[in-house]
Amino acid sequence: MSGDTLTIFSEFLGTMILVLLGDGVCAAVNLKKSKAEAAGWVAIALGWGAAVTIAVYVSGFMGPAHLNPAVTVGMAMIGNVEWSLVLPFIIAQVAGGIVGAVLVWLTYLPHFKETEDQGFILGTFATGPAIRNNISNVMTETIGTFVLVFALMMFGQNTFTDGLNPLVVGVLILSIGLSLGGSTGYAINPARDLGPRIAHQILPIANKGNSEWDYSWIPVVGPILGAVLAALLYMVIL
Amino acid sequence: MSGDTLTIFSEFLGTMILVLLGDGVCAAVNLKKSKAEAAGWVAIALGWGAAVTIAVYVSGFMGPAHLNPAVTVGMAMIGNVEWSLVLPFIIAQVAGGIVGAVLVWLTYLPHFKETEDQGFILGTFATGPAIRNNISNVMTETIGTFVLVFALMMFGQNTFTDGLNPLVVGVLILSIGLSLGGSTGYAINPARDLGPRIAHQILPIANKGNSEWDYSWIPVVGPILGAVLAALLYMVIL
Amino acid sequence: MSGDTLTIFSEFLGTMILVLLGDGVCAAVNLKKSKAEAAGWVAIALGWGAAVTIAVYVSGFMGPAHLNPAVTVGMAMIGNVEWSLVLPFIIAQVAGGIVGAVLVWLTYLPHFKETEDQGFILGTFATGPAIRNNISNVMTETIGTFVLVFALMMFGQNTFTDGLNPLVVGVLILSIGLSLGGSTGYAINPARDLGPRIAHQILPIANKGNSEWDYSWIPVVGPILGAVLAALLYMVIL
Amino acid sequence: MSGDTLTIFSEFLGTMILVLLGDGVCAAVNLKKSKAEAAGWVAIALGWGAAVTIAVYVSGFMGPAHLNPAVTVGMAMIGNVEWSLVLPFIIAQVAGGIVGAVLVWLTYLPHFKETEDQGFILGTFATGPAIRNNISNVMTETIGTFVLVFALMMFGQNTFTDGLNPLVVGVLILSIGLSLGGSTGYAINPARDLGPRIAHQILPIANKGNSEWDYSWIPVVGPILGAVLAALLYMVIL
Repeated sequence: MSGDTLTIFSEFLGTMILVLLGDGVCAAVNLKKSKAEAAGWVAIALGWGAAVTIAVYVSGFMGPAHLNPAVTVGMAMIGNVEWSLVLPFIIAQVAGGIVGAVLVWLTYLPHFKETEDQGFILGTFATGPAIRNNISNVMTETIGTFVLVFALMMFGQNTFTDGLNPLVVGVLILSIGLSLGGSTGYAINPARDLGPRIAHQILPIANKGNSEWDYSWIPVVGPILGAVLAALLYMVIL
Repeated sequence: MSGDTLTIFSEFLGTMILVLLGDGVCAAVNLKKSKAEAAGWVAIALGWGAAVTIAVYVSGFMGPAHLNPAVTVGMAMIGNVEWSLVLPFIIAQVAGGIVGAVLVWLTYLPHFKETEDQGFILGTFATGPAIRNNISNVMTETIGTFVLVFALMMFGQNTFTDGLNPLVVGVLILSIGLSLGGSTGYAINPARDLGPRIAHQILPIANKGNSEWDYSWIPVVGPILGAVLAALLYMVIL
Repeated sequence: MSGDTLTIFSEFLGTMILVLLGDGVCAAVNLKKSKAEAAGWVAIALGWGAAVTIAVYVSGFMGPAHLNPAVTVGMAMIGNVEWSLVLPFIIAQVAGGIVGAVLVWLTYLPHFKETEDQGFILGTFATGPAIRNNISNVMTETIGTFVLVFALMMFGQNTFTDGLNPLVVGVLILSIGLSLGGSTGYAINPARDLGPRIAHQILPIANKGNSEWDYSWIPVVGPILGAVLAALLYMVIL
Repeated sequence: MSGDTLTIFSEFLGTMILVLLGDGVCAAVNLKKSKAEAAGWVAIALGWGAAVTIAVYVSGFMGPAHLNPAVTVGMAMIGNVEWSLVLPFIIAQVAGGIVGAVLVWLTYLPHFKETEDQGFILGTFATGPAIRNNISNVMTETIGTFVLVFALMMFGQNTFTDGLNPLVVGVLILSIGLSLGGSTGYAINPARDLGPRIAHQILPIANKGNSEWDYSWIPVVGPILGAVLAALLYMVIL
């Protein structure tokens, strides 16, 4: 593979690894009889941070490793990626999210039968709010994604080497997870929420319930809003 | 923006990110129905460490990233920053702390109504002592900030690259949090305590109680004392 | 020592350190009266991640630091190591695993007498499934090792310096442990499981039970399958 | 200061910071009413790992940053430090350990009155075995220190930059703490145990009990033995 094909494929592959490892820790902590059952929020936040670091290292030599439609939109706004690549990237990212979620299901297959709580099973795939409130939930996702995208843009202004970058991005995800994730479960990435939610809808998962599509627009709209705000602030400053 | 304006703005912006992410983890662990509720001291210490790392990366290419009046005073004493910038920096830092705290409030808005404990709500914003004792509390904050400022000065003598520096500063904050933070909650930064306390006073927060202004001088005096001692030792050694 | 002898010895030594530190954290968390008793899954995952980082640093200047027969097979498939070294490497790795496990036994000697649960004692040495199911357990080990070996191959395509590499590999192990380890305990390495299981069989361990040899083929077959799949995907892409 | 005086002073200062931050986390977790009370073994192990990283950064530009008599003896055996400096280094390290422990006492002063358990108070200063057995306890400390000193020697053979080194040493301490620390509390450093034990004996600590001098030889003899074994293996290999 080469050129744009490789770049688009790298968004698919990177998001697949991201969701396999990211939703993997949700499965590990949520599902019954898992050795990591009830390991707590530190496990979740460390797990997602490490997942992003690894996904960026794995896909980063083939492409920009956005792995997130909100990041792609923000980067297009400031001219870091061509607008013609935005739609292909987003499709690849959501497809990667679906395949990653299927792999999580296969990794923990016998544990779904043991888990009776439908909320825990959906929580293995998609995010949900601790307290449902449309305006608050959008605002929380907007603030979290603003920090994510603005920090990523600022990292580009820094002098640290390429090799360190994915580790620092992992610390950023750890930070957002620990600090801004307690209310909505920090989707901060439409592909990370939408892809696995589609997988949850389609797969014959034992004990599964509703895929809660009425919430699904929030982890799309909030992150896009946050990315737009980050791009605007970035353009004002620099 | 350019020159001193950009540098002063970077202190505002960096401290805003610092307090958003730092007080964010206090909110995540303290507030009811948060997914991170009761995640414990490791979550708090990791969250503040990561918060400082990210805040330094985000603001560090525009300015010195002190993000802390005690650091600014110490660095002025050893000649690393001009005395004429000290007051503008401190004002920017406290203003950043206020705005950061407002963003935490917006991020966790529906959770304040669910939290009846006024101490938990104030603890989301400002620090407080486990055992109130003026002399002990000042001494604890002095020792913690002495370690912070002296280590930052020594880091400048080391050979590690700029790119690694904010990660090491994050480990420093993690270390101080885990080891020296158990008695007063390690303000070690007047802007981190004063800014959010002002926000707590002003904002219409559900279930909020007293802002405990009678304690507020300790996280100012202790850190300044620690920074002065660190600068004196540094000047004796080098 | 020099040449191939040193390289093969480095696989022995590195795997010995890996299993001493890795099984060490299992002992620390599982055995009665240990100060780390019941420290939880975050301790296990951090412990294994740090163990691999240290083992790679210690042995990495003498050889490729595979420390894992599945990694050796995958790397041979893509031409990174000569096929003639594969068998000597695997023998050295399993021997290192045995000696590492003996050292864990010596480190925690008085604690085995205090631990009556035979499962906890075997869990200090070898892995076991949360839910026994041959096909599922193989699949889980295959997916985990696929991520491990594919990521290691991709790291080789990246630009980060040698010095950072073992830290990133530690983050990878942390990630797999937190996210993909909850069902089978993530052997993802035949030598890490087989070596200590042999030690468990041979040593006069207080309170020990069955070494569960009927499960022992799964942490061999699954990881080899995962490594083969990773090598195939790698060859398709590049 | 300059030359040997500065080098010896750096061992004093670095060990002081090491024990202040290291025993600090023991105080934070052990003492009553501390905000970190009962934060668990992950907090202890992270705290000591971060403590060593910071102590090495702070003192590392002035000297070799051994901060540990066992490391000094091992390094003298392989010719990395002159034998004439060994005794001055050890005296400086123990003195640093005493002063660091005094600072911990000052940091947590009001908490000692609240803590009735004499074992928790001594545990804030010095190590103790989970199960007392002279031979086993010496063997555990020997194995832990062997890993420490051998890894430090091997790090010197690696190519990673000076800047990264203290972070990797912190991961090493984290690893030894999580994996090999559960039985004796991993002194792995005579100065870290002896210095604070002397402080415990001398200081007028509220609620303090016996300083358990009958155990104090084990965290001296075990670490020295481990360092000698590490130096011998190192000389055989290279």
